[in-house]
Amino acid sequence: MQEMILAYIETHRLRFIDELFSLLRIPSISAEAAHKPDMLRAAACWRDALLAAGADRAALFPTAGNPIVYGEKIIDPQAPTVLVYAHYDVMPVDPLDRWLSPPFEPTIRDGKIYARGADDDKGQGFMHAKAFEAMVATGTLPCNVKFMIEGEEEIGSASLLDWCRTQKDRLAADVILVSDTGMISPCCPSITAGLRGLACVEVEVEGPNRDLHSGLYGGAVANPINILCRMIAALHDDDGRIAIPGFYDDVQELSPAERKTLAKAPFNLQEYRQALNVAELQGEKGYRTPEHTGIRPALDVNGIWGGYTGEGSKTVIPAKAFAKLSIRLVPNQDWQTVVRQFTECFEWLAPPSVKVRVAPAHGGQPYVSPLKSVAYRAAERALTQTFGIRPLPFRSGGSIPIIAAFEEILGMKSILMGFGLAGDAIHSPNENYPLKNFFKGIEGIALFYAHFTTLATAGQYPAAVARPPA
Amino acid sequence: MQEMILAYIETHRLRFIDELFSLLRIPSISAEAAHKPDMLRAAACWRDALLAAGADRAALFPTAGNPIVYGEKIIDPQAPTVLVYAHYDVMPVDPLDRWLSPPFEPTIRDGKIYARGADDDKGQGFMHAKAFEAMVATGTLPCNVKFMIEGEEEIGSASLLDWCRTQKDRLAADVILVSDTGMISPCCPSITAGLRGLACVEVEVEGPNRDLHSGLYGGAVANPINILCRMIAALHDDDGRIAIPGFYDDVQELSPAERKTLAKAPFNLQEYRQALNVAELQGEKGYRTPEHTGIRPALDVNGIWGGYTGEGSKTVIPAKAFAKLSIRLVPNQDWQTVVRQFTECFEWLAPPSVKVRVAPAHGGQPYVSPLKSVAYRAAERALTQTFGIRPLPFRSGGSIPIIAAFEEILGMKSILMGFGLAGDAIHSPNENYPLKNFFKGIEGIALFYAHFTTLATAGQYPAAVARPPA
Repeated sequence: MQEMILAYIETHRLRFIDELFSLLRIPSISAEAAHKPDMLRAAACWRDALLAAGADRAALFPTAGNPIVYGEKIIDPQAPTVLVYAHYDVMPVDPLDRWLSPPFEPTIRDGKIYARGADDDKGQGFMHAKAFEAMVATGTLPCNVKFMIEGEEEIGSASLLDWCRTQKDRLAADVILVSDTGMISPCCPSITAGLRGLACVEVEVEGPNRDLHSGLYGGAVANPINILCRMIAALHDDDGRIAIPGFYDDVQELSPAERKTLAKAPFNLQEYRQALNVAELQGEKGYRTPEHTGIRPALDVNGIWGGYTGEGSKTVIPAKAFAKLSIRLVPNQDWQTVVRQFTECFEWLAPPSVKVRVAPAHGGQPYVSPLKSVAYRAAERALTQTFGIRPLPFRSGGSIPIIAAFEEILGMKSILMGFGLAGDAIHSPNENYPLKNFFKGIEGIALFYAHFTTLATAGQYPAAVARPPA
Repeated sequence: MQEMILAYIETHRLRFIDELFSLLRIPSISAEAAHKPDMLRAAACWRDALLAAGADRAALFPTAGNPIVYGEKIIDPQAPTVLVYAHYDVMPVDPLDRWLSPPFEPTIRDGKIYARGADDDKGQGFMHAKAFEAMVATGTLPCNVKFMIEGEEEIGSASLLDWCRTQKDRLAADVILVSDTGMISPCCPSITAGLRGLACVEVEVEGPNRDLHSGLYGGAVANPINILCRMIAALHDDDGRIAIPGFYDDVQELSPAERKTLAKAPFNLQEYRQALNVAELQGEKGYRTPEHTGIRPALDVNGIWGGYTGEGSKTVIPAKAFAKLSIRLVPNQDWQTVVRQFTECFEWLAPPSVKVRVAPAHGGQPYVSPLKSVAYRAAERALTQTFGIRPLPFRSGGSIPIIAAFEEILGMKSILMGFGLAGDAIHSPNENYPLKNFFKGIEGIALFYAHFTTLATAGQYPAAVARPPA
């Protein structure tokens, strides 16, 4: 069966790329209202791709936000069912001047596809359409497949969650399969066994009722930018720990044995530093760099602005200053609790000379996947066969809030079989995805279906289900 | 003579306003390169105004930057000479959406002219053209008058300083007369006896070589925004003092007697707070609010930016973060020394995880004017006569770096007879200037010429000269 899939991929390589490029050309940036029509175009493109690949049916489901693409092929109601999740929305593209080729004109350079979404998540998502097509075309599809493709992953997946709550029967499956994560390195395939949660907030510090001349008022009136800087500085202590009261109360401390297992993943500090061109790293005292991103929380300012930022100088004390912050969470933190802790702390930090406002934007819970499940073992076998190397479990620093929400709403665990690389520059200028990973991904996904069906029907079915739907 | 001047003003009121509006309509923003042609238009407008008002000659002098308008009327080579300084450039206008009427469409509301430059310094500068015209027209001009109007005051006056160095003979005078400052209040005329100096810098904090996904890297890689905030926070101590090593070494501490004299100026803390709509003020421990701006230095962030600042959220660790800062200086601080101290301190504050760059932009020295000079006494008499109240000496928090530079280059003291009010919103949206102050200013300036000529020729001439030209 693996050979048939490989032969099919080989025959249709160019068409696969051509079809992916059509999807990549659509600037479906969910964070920017101006791109509303592009969201629809991207959704329609996915629907058509599913139908062309062999789905029994596929359609757009309207929501309060961007539509959800749902498609399915039911070969046998008694067979195991895999629910594939992906997203067709992408991140904003600024700073645009840093892109070597336009973000929505996909280009191949040095064996990599360059475009916004090339990896996250159009490139990785589209592998699923093509793996499905290859299995249908070669008559090797062993299980039922359902596709659920959303358009708001980068802005919190609110519409999908609402939709899932009303579609539990339609979405019934044994496991959710997702490729929206990465591998440790090209020579070290891995399965993401944990994800950090996320809490995003926007803060505003308001001082005087108008921009003031910094000569006439400087020294007497609190400057909202200076205050904001001081408040942000106060959010970390000297050991790199987040200084919000109660913040670590729910943080799961891993045992030495668990830390040892995760430490098996190769990590070269010097290469990591060199790839980022930084002289030193910085993180919470007492933990290794992979632990800083994998098992420890983090607080980052993602954007800050206030006052005069144009050419030359303008000596003002601005009326307001702003920042966007995100907090990455680990099990068993709850994002809404953290937003509440942050808000209380930030308001407490504000001196009486300013007013502050905290606007919670969105968030999601952290996630862990059991290494003993049928799905994890099927993924392990599929990747071993694809790469010739046994994959390692990996705790990713990234967040896919929807994964924890799926567990809560649909009662299903997800298996995170991602093929991205550290150099793919997702969320950054010059996002890219190696062609090799795109094709290996298609192969690995097809093999997953085969192994999952075998394991799930060998007396252990439906062991992948975490617990009954809520 | 006062009556003749008042009658002339009364007759020509509407024309004066109309002419000022022509100047205000020109968007001569020196900080923005796109306005280069407007700088020329504003300079030409001033030249034509001087010729029309009665100057013997007036012309534009080209410089490496914006041209200087120079004009003069020499009634008698033996008579005292007053050199008038003003500037035709204005500050940028953002945030544009906060203006109630467009900044370059002057409008009169509630007896005030609303426009960028209405006060600073087109409105105040133009009073000099009209006072001069009134004296020439009524045959009452008692002294020689020279005008030097520049177009780079808001960006550091570099071209004017270069020009002054080559034009010492042409500019020879007994005193420099400037209206680019304010009065304590409508019922409390004042003469600005001191100005703060200014040092402006732009800083850049550079972290990783590209914007990073804050999930994948957050917690392990230093975030340039968080670092910049921490560095800015470290620039003040808990008493509101600037924490740069050596910063206060040259700060002149005033004697209790000097502080008492300056404290004569009326000041109402509650009104001040209410006008700004802030619950509390904030300043260096041990000093009163007027002292915070008048006799103590200050450090303000005028602008900050970095990362994603658009709609929605984008969870990045940005490659770089930036800020523009200005430091207000008092006698006897030297702005170049302070820039050096700041730079050393800022570089020292940077952790090894980032690189920092400090770009000095421009600066100027602080200034003090002796209260016993002929010019001060002439201004005191002129304002007493104009307002019926004896003016108070006042230390302004603002900076006119050129004033200290004039003393150094031309060997002349300046007399700062300004008519602006605190509510004029200079450098802010909705800048305005009361019509009453515009006309009172014209009257006061004409009276200054009369008193200055009388005092200067009564055996004390040229007592206004500080020291021989360098």
